[in-house]
This record gives sequence, C-alpha cells and structure tokens, in this order.
Amino acid sequence: MKTLVICSGGLDSVTLAHKVAAEAELTRLISFDYGQRHKKELDYARRCAERLGVPHNVIDIANVGALLSGSALTDDVDVPDGHYEEETMKVTVVPNRNAIMLAIAFGAAAAENADAVAAAVHGGDHFIYPDCRPAFIDSFEEMQRHALDGYAAVKLYTPFVHLPKSDIAAEGSRLKVPFEETWSCYKGYEHHCGRCGTCVERREAFHVANVEDPTIYQDPDYWLEAVEKAKGA
Amino acid sequence: MKTLVICSGGLDSVTLAHKVAAEAELTRLISFDYGQRHKKELDYARRCAERLGVPHNVIDIANVGALLSGSALTDDVDVPDGHYEEETMKVTVVPNRNAIMLAIAFGAAAAENADAVAAAVHGGDHFIYPDCRPAFIDSFEEMQRHALDGYAAVKLYTPFVHLPKSDIAAEGSRLKVPFEETWSCYKGYEHHCGRCGTCVERREAFHVANVEDPTIYQDPDYWLEAVEKAKGA
Repeated sequence: MKTLVICSGGLDSVTLAHKVAAEAELTRLISFDYGQRHKKELDYARRCAERLGVPHNVIDIANVGALLSGSALTDDVDVPDGHYEEETMKVTVVPNRNAIMLAIAFGAAAAENADAVAAAVHGGDHFIYPDCRPAFIDSFEEMQRHALDGYAAVKLYTPFVHLPKSDIAAEGSRLKVPFEETWSCYKGYEHHCGRCGTCVERREAFHVANVEDPTIYQDPDYWLEAVEKAKGA
Repeated sequence: MKTLVICSGGLDSVTLAHKVAAEAELTRLISFDYGQRHKKELDYARRCAERLGVPHNVIDIANVGALLSGSALTDDVDVPDGHYEEETMKVTVVPNRNAIMLAIAFGAAAAENADAVAAAVHGGDHFIYPDCRPAFIDSFEEMQRHALDGYAAVKLYTPFVHLPKSDIAAEGSRLKVPFEETWSCYKGYEHHCGRCGTCVERREAFHVANVEDPTIYQDPDYWLEAVEKAKGA
C-alpha cells in the first residue's frame, strides 16, 4: 500500500508518518505553507522525512491563504489562549483548509500512482472543525472516487479519526516517535508557549496517555487551569 | 444570491460570468495559474471582470501543478491535435484539477460570505474528464456541505453540466457575450490554432448552435475533418 502522508510537523502527523512507515510503504511527506505566521513546524516535517528516508515536498499555497482572510492563522490577529473547546478558538479556523490540502494531496497521489493519502485528523478536533469530522472524511473519499474515476484509485487513510489525542500519544510512544522532534504551538517562540489551544491539548494528551512529555513549555502549568475551565464551561 | 465565478477566460466560463451577472449578484471572478504553458486565457478572464465591473483574483497554484506532473498542460509534452473524444486527449488531464480549484473557490466564497460558487463544467466534458461529470459535481457539493458545516452554506452552481457546448454558445449569443474576447486554444499562438481539442470543440459548438463565430483560426477547416474522424472512431 503506497501511501503519501500529509505532515505538518505536529505530534499527530509525525506519529502518523511513523505509523505508515512501520505498517505500509511510505512514499513521501507533503506539507503546506499556507502563509502561517511561523514556519517552525515545517522544519520538523522536513526532519521527519529525513529520519524516515523519504522525499518531502512543501507546497506553497500562501496565495490561497491570502484570499481566505479572517483567520488568526494567516492574518494579524492575536491567537487566543485557552482550551480548544472554547468558542473563542473558532477564530483559528481557515475556511476549507482541509478540503484544499486533501484535494492537492490526492492529485499528487494520483500523479505518483500511490494507493492512499494519510491524514492525521483525530477525534479531538471534531467539535470545532467540521472538516475533521468522520462525515466530512467519508464524503471527501466518495468525492475523490468520482473525481479520479478511471484514472486512479486513491484511498483516504485516517486511522486517528475516531481517537482522542491521548491515544495518538500512546501510539507514538509504542512507535518510539521522538516527540521532541514535533511542534504543535500556534506561536513561533523558541519553546512551546504552553498556553495556546494546541499546547494545552498536547500537554493534556500526554498526561491522559501517561506518556512522558519531553516538550519544554514556557508556561508548563497553564494547561491544567485551561482544562478545568473548559470542563466548567 | 452572491456568486463567485471560476473563470478561465474561455468561452464557457466567460459566458457563465455574463449569465451570473445578468441573473444573480456576481461578486468576483477567480482564475487559476497552475503553470499552464501560456497565460493568454488569463488576460481574457481579466478583461471579462473589467467588463462586468467586479474584482478578479488570479490564484497561483503553479507549485501544485509542478507536483502533478505527467500532463501535457503543464509539462513539456506536445498537445495532441484532434477531437476531444479521442483516446489521445487523455494526456491533457491534470490529476484532480477541478477538485483542487473548486475547493479553493469554496474557501474564498466562505471567506467573503458568498452563497455560491459557479463553475462552467458542461456535458461535452463528461466522457473524458471524470471531474466534470454530474456524479462528481453532486458529491463535491455534498462534501462541502460537511466541510463548512456551521460556518458557511455555499452552493455549487453548474448550469451547463447537462448541456452540450453548442447550448452554451447559444446562451452566450442571447446574453450578447463578446465571443472574440474569449480564448479556448491550448496553444499560445496569436490566433486560435483550429486543430487542438478545444479549438475543434469550439468551432463545432458555434456551427451546431448556428451562431456566428468571430474567432480567427489559423486552420479554419480542420475541425470538420476531426469531427468526421471522431464519428467514425
């Protein structure tokens, strides 16, 4: 099963790349530069590809990002602190980002006669991001079946779609993923900030999975407060 | 109904832009530069936007095109002469191009709170391009319903999907589209070549619709030979 992995350099997609390399035939990693304010995570994706001995393509879709304005990921808006499940995190949504990245990845997979595209969407994203929900994933694969009919047969592999992030941390631990070689933080500091949505979610995932977290956080204790606040909300 | 039109500068999409401007609220035209060998058609899209008094965005996805290798549209391969329905025309397919362009257009539509994306796929494309078939169009709209759930409701408007190209020429004639301000040819000469698949299809469409064709073709008579050959195949 020749499989291309969409890899942002984060915990989930780096773990997915290691999983595909262990269980199938990993052909390449592709990453997207959509005009995010820091490119630190792309470095971690590149290092993951080097570690696994496969090519890495960074696809520049910053021109597209510029059109999709109104998002904290691409515009000059402050990234909010707090837990993902809070309403304020909606500002981090780039409209249709997953559909765009997946469609490009399917084109690349078809061009290299790969059998599958793997993406690290996971259960924890469902509430906030409609394009991470199982219904989206299923409808996307069906759309691609029609789009490539007669030319290519490419599956969409999303083994984490029903799992909480803590299960990904546990899977990564089993696969001996070097977690310090992954980047989750929305901010571009030297270390993970510990306060933004992805930092809180990352820290919580390691805690729930009972897996040692090698990450250095600027604010290592904020996550617990944020989780408690989200529970109470 | 605020509607964004994907416009290549060709006969079909320029006619669609005029149709939307006449029947709904046209918000903008968007075109894609996917590394096609000549950009002549993009000029005609720009002129269409100026004529209709709306913004025009050219979205550069040439980086993506470079990944989707193996196509005559983007690589250094000769564009074949002849009728679309011939097997040899398959070389002009860029894998997943319509899914990629539509996904980006839906992101742009969601960002500007538009109600619809209009695309000029038409009946004549069905046989050769899977991503122009009604089943693809329906599954794409369904996918987008999930992808944008809770954030935006964007329809996919494809009024030509069941029509032959000759009906588009007839519709353009009714709408008084300046056909000389449209470009179909796959080659980048001063005038339409008259021999490539789109030239043959264009010339045939005007003939069948009994609409005067103002286009200057380098080889104005080849189309009839190509159509006869396709019928006999």
